[in-house]
Amino acid sequence: MLKQVQQSLMNILESLQWRYACKKFDNTQIIPDDKINILKEAFNLTATSFGLQPIKMILIKNKKLQAELTTHSFNQQQVATASHLLVICIDKDTSPQDIDDNFDREKKIRGTSEEVIASFRKFLKDTYANKSLEEKQQSAIYQAYIVLGNLMTVCALEKIDSCPMEGFNPDKYDEILDLESKNLKSVLLLPIGYRADDDFMSKLKKVRKPLSETIIEL
Amino acid sequence: MLKQVQQSLMNILESLQWRYACKKFDNTQIIPDDKINILKEAFNLTATSFGLQPIKMILIKNKKLQAELTTHSFNQQQVATASHLLVICIDKDTSPQDIDDNFDREKKIRGTSEEVIASFRKFLKDTYANKSLEEKQQSAIYQAYIVLGNLMTVCALEKIDSCPMEGFNPDKYDEILDLESKNLKSVLLLPIGYRADDDFMSKLKKVRKPLSETIIEL
Repeated sequence: MLKQVQQSLMNILESLQWRYACKKFDNTQIIPDDKINILKEAFNLTATSFGLQPIKMILIKNKKLQAELTTHSFNQQQVATASHLLVICIDKDTSPQDIDDNFDREKKIRGTSEEVIASFRKFLKDTYANKSLEEKQQSAIYQAYIVLGNLMTVCALEKIDSCPMEGFNPDKYDEILDLESKNLKSVLLLPIGYRADDDFMSKLKKVRKPLSETIIEL
Repeated sequence: MLKQVQQSLMNILESLQWRYACKKFDNTQIIPDDKINILKEAFNLTATSFGLQPIKMILIKNKKLQAELTTHSFNQQQVATASHLLVICIDKDTSPQDIDDNFDREKKIRGTSEEVIASFRKFLKDTYANKSLEEKQQSAIYQAYIVLGNLMTVCALEKIDSCPMEGFNPDKYDEILDLESKNLKSVLLLPIGYRADDDFMSKLKKVRKPLSETIIEL
């Protein structure tokens, strides 16, 4: 119990300092289910534009599949050695039905009346009707990056290593994971697990600009 | 002390549940400097593509300026009432010099030799030389969203309210904050503070899709 308390007292900045882009995981260590459940919930609690959640997460725990995907990830071994591979995806489209579903969910969960919702429903449907498919996908991609920022921090606080990745072949991922049939597109990867003792990256100091160069106070 | 321990034991999911997009802050409450310092460091520790940090944060604690900016934020009162307004910006360009500076920083902090760095330096400079200015800005915008995801979570853990905002007039912000001369462009806002007692949004249940609709396990 004392150890748990001490661990929880490790502050946020120490966790963010501890985090790094893990390049090799210890493939004998598996993240326990209760921790994975935290990541699932944290993913789902991520804030998204207008609350529309145009994103989905594929959770892969399958070393054979991970090995196959590694070849479409510039052979980066963090994909193969991870305990789990998270593939952050966007919905290919945000339809009027998706927007209606969201308001119906709000009415059910909050008991909000249609009178209160009606004008915002109309505004949001009009806004999305004026967007091209490309614009809707671009907006969804932004939300995928919010997910990445949230999950990296949650992982660090839970002492789970991770590696944010833009570098992979999304078309191959979409094909192998059959994302076309699910109306999804893969956007980002986050392999997660526990750092291997011999990941040389884990021993290196963090490189950052000084605060004086990155923050302007007005 | 016990209260502190109990607070720190509030788990991550409780913090993410507690978070919501605050629409009205209690403008009599100011976030203490030690908490602001945590947010500055957390901003700077955010992971970015290739570690290039093509982002900056403007920290505004000036009610008169906030009032002026509110008129260019669709009059959303969270900008006016916030204790501080964070404006997340991108660098207008990522130049070969920026890339060199980053490697020089690495050499200084980590003591890495040029021999180890040389091929990656060449790769990264070639990669960026092949990108258009628009592509470089697009990549930087993605990193700004990672910041947003990280900072919203850090705020929630520190019991600081926040409101992620895409809805404002970036050209007007750039003009008022003189970002042109700093080679910056404003991308996202995060007003922060403490929720007003009468912010009706704070009383509402969180609306989310069920996990069964957002997560696919393979």
